[in-house]
Amino acid sequence: MLGLHLTAELGGCDAAAAAMTDAAALRALCVDAVRDAGLRPLGELFHAFGGDGGNGVTGMVLLAESHLAVHTWPELGAVTLDVFVCNRSVDHSGAARRLLDRVAAAFTPARVQRHELQRDLPRRPA
Amino acid sequence: MLGLHLTAELGGCDAAAAAMTDAAALRALCVDAVRDAGLRPLGELFHAFGGDGGNGVTGMVLLAESHLAVHTWPELGAVTLDVFVCNRSVDHSGAARRLLDRVAAAFTPARVQRHELQRDLPRRPA
Repeated sequence: MLGLHLTAELGGCDAAAAAMTDAAALRALCVDAVRDAGLRPLGELFHAFGGDGGNGVTGMVLLAESHLAVHTWPELGAVTLDVFVCNRSVDHSGAARRLLDRVAAAFTPARVQRHELQRDLPRRPA
Repeated sequence: MLGLHLTAELGGCDAAAAAMTDAAALRALCVDAVRDAGLRPLGELFHAFGGDGGNGVTGMVLLAESHLAVHTWPELGAVTLDVFVCNRSVDHSGAARRLLDRVAAAFTPARVQRHELQRDLPRRPA
């Protein structure tokens, strides 16, 4: 079984985008994007730092297919994204790329550095 | 700012390990390992599949330094691990490797495939 892990580092993002600093806005963006991509959310957890931790937000959505994780640094105009999907019986690679593109676009980044990692898992027990 | 993203695919794991199928056991393993590594947990979310989804567990711990994610497939003896840390003012790379090693060891894997990705983030606003 292959899993596909997509990462992206976004730079030059709109620091005024609600999802950069508002945990509820980032949660709504992520859950909507997961559903629109045809993936299945199992639950989610988002945290706004505040205080000495800056005003960024960090969060994740657990998926039946694996996970989405997002971390924002509004003071740097930066965001990181992770989408991991396991392609056991269905190839979710297209859905994973749509999900990443949709979440990234919400931050209107000037620069995007992307990486794709194929993660090989056993097809049967050892 | 550099972030370090560690991934591992574990094969030949002990399918009888509690953390393979029990969400509470996996949660305790992960949160204890985060604290022992000197990282700071902000919250966590774990889900046991059950039914048609198999008897695996999926979960994440949000960290002040970024995140830990774990997915188990007991029927395949397989586990995936992700540890992502941002090294903004302190280099958390050693703590990230200790965390991954500690969680991996709990599954007594016969095979471990590891990968390290350096993730470059802006040091200042665009």
